[in-house]
Amino acid sequence: MPLPARVPVLPEGVDPAWLPPAVFRPLGSRRTLIRGSGPPVDAVHAEVADACARFGGQMTSDDAGAATPAHDLVLEAGDAKGPEGEEFTCSRRDGTTTVTAAGPAGLLYGLFHVVRLGEDAFRGAWPPETHRPAVGLRMLDHWDNVAVHPVMGQVERGYAGGSLFWADGRARGESERVRAYGRLLAACGINAITVNNVNVHETEARLLTDRIGEVADIARALRPYGIRTHLSVTFAAPVVLGGEDTADPLDPAVRRWWADATRRVYQAIPDFGGFVVKADSEGQPGPFAYGRSHADGANMLAAALAPYGGTVHWRAFVYDHRQDWRDRTTDRARAAHDHFVPLDGEFAPNAVLQVKHGPMDFQVREPVSPLIGAMPRTRLAVEAQVTQEYTGQQRHACWLGPMWSEVLRFRPDGRGATVGELARGGLVAVSNAGDDPFWTGHPLAQANLYTFGRLAWQPGADPRALLGEWIRLTHPDAPQRLTDGLHTVLDGSWRTYEKYTAPLGVGFMVQPGHHYGPSVDGYEYSPWGTYHFADRDGVGVDRSRATGTGYAGQYAEPWADLYESPGTCPDELLLFFHHVPYGHVLHSGRTVIQHIYDTHFEGVEEVEAAREVWASLAHLVEPARHARVAELYEEQLHSAREWRDQINTYFFRKSGVPDERSRPIH
Amino acid sequence: MPLPARVPVLPEGVDPAWLPPAVFRPLGSRRTLIRGSGPPVDAVHAEVADACARFGGQMTSDDAGAATPAHDLVLEAGDAKGPEGEEFTCSRRDGTTTVTAAGPAGLLYGLFHVVRLGEDAFRGAWPPETHRPAVGLRMLDHWDNVAVHPVMGQVERGYAGGSLFWADGRARGESERVRAYGRLLAACGINAITVNNVNVHETEARLLTDRIGEVADIARALRPYGIRTHLSVTFAAPVVLGGEDTADPLDPAVRRWWADATRRVYQAIPDFGGFVVKADSEGQPGPFAYGRSHADGANMLAAALAPYGGTVHWRAFVYDHRQDWRDRTTDRARAAHDHFVPLDGEFAPNAVLQVKHGPMDFQVREPVSPLIGAMPRTRLAVEAQVTQEYTGQQRHACWLGPMWSEVLRFRPDGRGATVGELARGGLVAVSNAGDDPFWTGHPLAQANLYTFGRLAWQPGADPRALLGEWIRLTHPDAPQRLTDGLHTVLDGSWRTYEKYTAPLGVGFMVQPGHHYGPSVDGYEYSPWGTYHFADRDGVGVDRSRATGTGYAGQYAEPWADLYESPGTCPDELLLFFHHVPYGHVLHSGRTVIQHIYDTHFEGVEEVEAAREVWASLAHLVEPARHARVAELYEEQLHSAREWRDQINTYFFRKSGVPDERSRPIH
Repeated sequence: MPLPARVPVLPEGVDPAWLPPAVFRPLGSRRTLIRGSGPPVDAVHAEVADACARFGGQMTSDDAGAATPAHDLVLEAGDAKGPEGEEFTCSRRDGTTTVTAAGPAGLLYGLFHVVRLGEDAFRGAWPPETHRPAVGLRMLDHWDNVAVHPVMGQVERGYAGGSLFWADGRARGESERVRAYGRLLAACGINAITVNNVNVHETEARLLTDRIGEVADIARALRPYGIRTHLSVTFAAPVVLGGEDTADPLDPAVRRWWADATRRVYQAIPDFGGFVVKADSEGQPGPFAYGRSHADGANMLAAALAPYGGTVHWRAFVYDHRQDWRDRTTDRARAAHDHFVPLDGEFAPNAVLQVKHGPMDFQVREPVSPLIGAMPRTRLAVEAQVTQEYTGQQRHACWLGPMWSEVLRFRPDGRGATVGELARGGLVAVSNAGDDPFWTGHPLAQANLYTFGRLAWQPGADPRALLGEWIRLTHPDAPQRLTDGLHTVLDGSWRTYEKYTAPLGVGFMVQPGHHYGPSVDGYEYSPWGTYHFADRDGVGVDRSRATGTGYAGQYAEPWADLYESPGTCPDELLLFFHHVPYGHVLHSGRTVIQHIYDTHFEGVEEVEAAREVWASLAHLVEPARHARVAELYEEQLHSAREWRDQINTYFFRKSGVPDERSRPIH
Repeated sequence: MPLPARVPVLPEGVDPAWLPPAVFRPLGSRRTLIRGSGPPVDAVHAEVADACARFGGQMTSDDAGAATPAHDLVLEAGDAKGPEGEEFTCSRRDGTTTVTAAGPAGLLYGLFHVVRLGEDAFRGAWPPETHRPAVGLRMLDHWDNVAVHPVMGQVERGYAGGSLFWADGRARGESERVRAYGRLLAACGINAITVNNVNVHETEARLLTDRIGEVADIARALRPYGIRTHLSVTFAAPVVLGGEDTADPLDPAVRRWWADATRRVYQAIPDFGGFVVKADSEGQPGPFAYGRSHADGANMLAAALAPYGGTVHWRAFVYDHRQDWRDRTTDRARAAHDHFVPLDGEFAPNAVLQVKHGPMDFQVREPVSPLIGAMPRTRLAVEAQVTQEYTGQQRHACWLGPMWSEVLRFRPDGRGATVGELARGGLVAVSNAGDDPFWTGHPLAQANLYTFGRLAWQPGADPRALLGEWIRLTHPDAPQRLTDGLHTVLDGSWRTYEKYTAPLGVGFMVQPGHHYGPSVDGYEYSPWGTYHFADRDGVGVDRSRATGTGYAGQYAEPWADLYESPGTCPDELLLFFHHVPYGHVLHSGRTVIQHIYDTHFEGVEEVEAAREVWASLAHLVEPARHARVAELYEEQLHSAREWRDQINTYFFRKSGVPDERSRPIH
C-alpha cells in the first residue's frame, strides 16, 4: 500500500530543520500548475497543496491543458528514470516561472530549488538554466545497529540520540518520522541511504533475509522523496544465514545463495539500491579467508545485483589493525592504495569501490587519499563523515563544508579532473542524524548534513554560499544580525576546531575507544597504526620516499614531489608527511612548537568569541534551540581548554621550549 | 533447616585448591576423638568422618568418656564464642596429639592446623602451643554485583569468572559451592565475608531489605565454617528503599528506619556481621549532603547495629576524584589523613574505619598509609586487595605475600606497634575468587588468597613459609623439584612485576578504565589525581613538606624526615615522594633513567625464566592446571614486553638518554 501523498507531520517537539513552514510562503501564495506522474510528483503535489493551504495560493493539476498566464509557476515532469530523470531546467518569462524536469525526481529537486530561491523565484525574467547533479549517487550511510551493541550502542559513532529506524532489536516503524527525514534529504539533494551499520552484527545480518520486510517499510517511506534504499551485508551471510559451509565468492553454491537472496530482496523492494560491504577490515569477514581478492568478492555480489540494476559498494577501508607500534615500516596510510591499485580494471561495472576521502580515518585534517585518481578503470565512490566522530561529536560546533569542499576540488594530477568529478560511483557520507528533536544533536550540525547533500549535487559549489542557503531556509525571517552571527560562528569553525586539537595534520591524539577529548599518547602505543612519534626533539611521521614509509610516492605529480620535502609540503600537512624538529620553521614563519602553542591559545579564544556571539543572538533564535546551542558552547569551551592545556603541556614537557608570549602552560 | 554436616562435594571439574583429599591422609588414617558441639564442631566431625572413610581411620564422639591411649588425636572444644573462641592449644604426648579449643570455631582452626602439620602432627612429643589470631576480624570483601553492571560486569575488578553468589540479578543458590568456598577460607583463617560490592547499585541495595533472604542463604552455608556474613549497603538506603525524603544521619526518622531495617536483618541472620559502607567517595552518597561528618554517618549505623553486636566498616577511601591535573596543590595521597584524623575519638566503639594499606589505590608499590597509627582512639581495619586489579589481573603470576608482609610489619612510629598490631578493627581484603574452576582464574593466584588469610591470622609470619604451606597443601605429594620450582616462580614474582611496570613507586601508568596493560600517560591528564609529571628533565611527584604537597609531613618520625629528602627516601618510593632529574643517582648507584631501563629489561627476563621453569614442571603438575598456567605465562610475557617497551620508549623519547647497554628501545 503506498503511503499517503501528503506532507509528513513532524512529531511534537521535532525541529523542522531547513524546511520550516515559512520557507514555503512565496510558493504557497502563488498559483501553480503541476504536470507529470510518479511517486516524486505525488510528493510535489503534496508540498504545493500544503503550501497553498497555508498561504492562500492555488494548485492546478495537469489535466487542465496548456499553462496560461493565470499560473505563476508551472512544474512539469517528463518520465525519465534514474540519474537522467534528476535533471531540471528553470526559467522565467511573462510572469511565469517554469520548471521542466526530465523525470519525476527532477521535479522534486526543481520544487526545492524554487523554495530555496524564495521570492526571487517570482521576480523579473531569466533564461533557462539547467541543473543536474554532478554525481549520480548521493548517499548517506547510517551506522545504525538494529540491536544495541554492548560497546557501540544503537548508533555506532552516533551523537544524535537513537536511530530513526531501529530500537532495541526491532524496527521502530515510525514511518512519519522516516518520511520527514526523507523530505529533508530530498531538499538538499540526497538520493540514497544505507539503513544499517557497515559493521554487520548478528541481528543486522538477518535484514538481508527474513527481516527484509522491515527494510521494505523504510524504502516505502523514502520512495516518494526519490531516495533508494541500500543495505549493509556481511560477507559471511551464506554461512551465518544460509548454513553453507563456505562464503568463498567463487563457489557455485555461494553464488547461487547470493543470487537467490538478492532476488528475494528485489521482490520485496523493486527499486532496491544495492549492498554496502566492509570486508576483510577491522575484523569483518571477507574473501581473503578463501584466498580470493577484493575484486572476486565484490564481483560476486555485483553479479547477483546486476539483473536488477543494483550496485555493490565495496569499502576500501582495509588496513592492518593489528600493527606493531615498534615497526615503523608498516604505514596504515599506504594500505588502501597498496591493496586496491593492483586490482584496477578487475571490478565489475556495477561494483563501486568506496574510498574514504583521506588515507586514515576522517581526521580534522588529512591529505586526499592517493587512491582517488589512481584507479581510472574502476568506479570510485568517495566517502565523507558527516557524523562528527573526530570533529567534536556534535558537542562542538564544527561546520565541515570547507573541508569537504577542499577535498572535492582537489585535482589528483594537479590540473585534470577534481575529486568531485572522479567520484563516478557516488559521494557518500556517514549520516549524523538520529531521533534527537533537532535531528543532529547539536542544532548547528544540521548545517553539515545540508551542506554535504548540496556539495554532493554540486561538488564545485562555494560552501559558504551553501551555508547561506541553510541559514536562510532554517531561519526564513532572519534579520541580518542573525545571518551574520551564524556565519561568524560557523564559517571558520572547522579551522577553529583544527587549531585546538591535533596540530599540523598529525591526527588522532584522542581518547581511545570513544574518541572524544584529548589524549596525546592515547593511540601512540596501540595496534591501530595512528602514531605521532613525538620525542624531546621533534614530532611527526616520516612518510617521504627518501627516508620514510614511501607514502608520499603514492601520489601523482605534482603532489608526490610537493609532499616529499618539508620545504614544499603545506604547513597544515607537515606532520602527516614529516618528522621535524620543534624548531623547524613553517612557511608561516613560526616554529612548529610556537605554532602549536599559538594555535591552541587562538582556538580557545575563537570558541570564547563564538560563545559570546551566540549569546548575543538570544532573542533572535527560538528559545529551545538557542538554549541547546548555548549549553553546548559551554561544553565545547570546556573541552577546547582541555585540548589546549593537554597539547601545550605535553609538548612543553617534551620540548622544554617556553612559549614566546609566556602564556600559562602546565 | 541446617545444612547437612558433611564435607561439601565439589562440582565436577572444580579444583580442590589447598584442600585436596590427599592432605587428609595423615589425619584420616588415625583414630580421632571429638568433643564439643556447635556448627563448626559439626564441620570438624564431617571432616574427620570423611577423612577416615577415605583413609581407614576411626572417629569417636565425645559421649565415650575419657580419651584413651586408643586415640591418636583428641579434638576438644569449649564453648567460648566470638574471637576468644578461636583460640586453640595443641600438644602431643604419650602418642596422642591433643587440640583443645576455647570454642567451636577454634576447633576448626585446630583441625586445619593438624592438617597443615601432616605426618608431623603424629610424631614425637611437644609441649602445649597456643595459637590465637592476632586480629579478631579477618574478612574478604567481595566486589560482586548482583545485577551485571554495564561497565564493571558481574564482579567489579573480578578476574576469576562470575560471582560465586550472584548471576544476572539473582542469587545463584549454589550452596554446595559456597560451602566449599567457606571451607577453603576456614582452612586459611578467614572468618568473615561481605557478599556484595561496596559500590552498591540499585539491585544490590535491596539485599538489605526484601532480598535479605538471599543473604541469609549464604550465611547459612558459611556458618559451619565459622564465617560471619556482612553486607555492603548504600548510605542512601532510607531514601532509595525506604521512601524517606532524607538520609540525614541525625534525622530521627532516618535513624528509626535503619534501626528497623537492621532488626529485620538480624531476624533473618542472627549472627550477621554488620555493614560495609563506601560513603561520599567516587560518587557514592554519604553524610556530606546533609552537612554531617563521616563520624555522624558511621555512628548512626553503629547505633543500629550495636544491640546485636554488629559492626559498621566505614571506608576511608575518600578523595577528590574530580581533581584538576593542572593544580599541583591538591594531593590525593593526603586525602584520607586530611579527612579522618580530625575525627579521631568521635567514632563509636563498633564503628571501624577501614583504611587501604596505601594512600592511593593498591598499586604495586606504595608507602604505608599515614592514617594507620595516626588515629589511636579509633578502631582501624586495614584493607588489602587480593584481586589483582593493578598487579596483573590474574593473568600475571604475582604473589603478593611479601608486599603485604612488608606493610603489616611496618611500624608507623618506627619502634612501637606494627600495622598488623594496629589493625584492631580487622584485616580485610578484596577477594580474588569467583566461579572459575580454579577459583581464582590464574591457578597460582590461589596462593594470594591463602597467604592473605594466614597473614591476617598471624601478620608477623614469614610469608615465604606461608607460601611453603600453600605448596605442600596444594601439591601434597610434590617432589622437591616441584616445590623448588613453585618457589622459584612465585617467591620473587611481585618484585618482577614491579620491575616491568611503573617504576620507583610512581604508580599507575595503566590503561584507563580496565587498568590492564601499560599507558604511561593514561591517567596523566585525568581528574583522578594519579600523576607522574614526567617531562624532558625528570619525573615524580614532589610530596615533600619543603617544596611539595606536604604529604611526607603526615607521617610520624622517623618516616616524615626519611621521606622528606631524596637523599634518605628509599629508592623504591623515590618517585612517589620526589620529582627528580633522570640523572639522579639512587642508593643503588644507578641513575633513575638507567634504573628504569635496567629493571624493565630484567623484569621481562625474569618472566621468560619463570615461563621456562614452569614448562620444566609439566609432568609434575596436573595437566589442566599446568596448561592453564603455561597459557597465562604466554600472556604475561607478551604483556611484560609491552610494558617494557612502552615504558622504556616513553622515557627514552622524553629524556633522550641512551641505555648504557644499547639494548633495543623504540
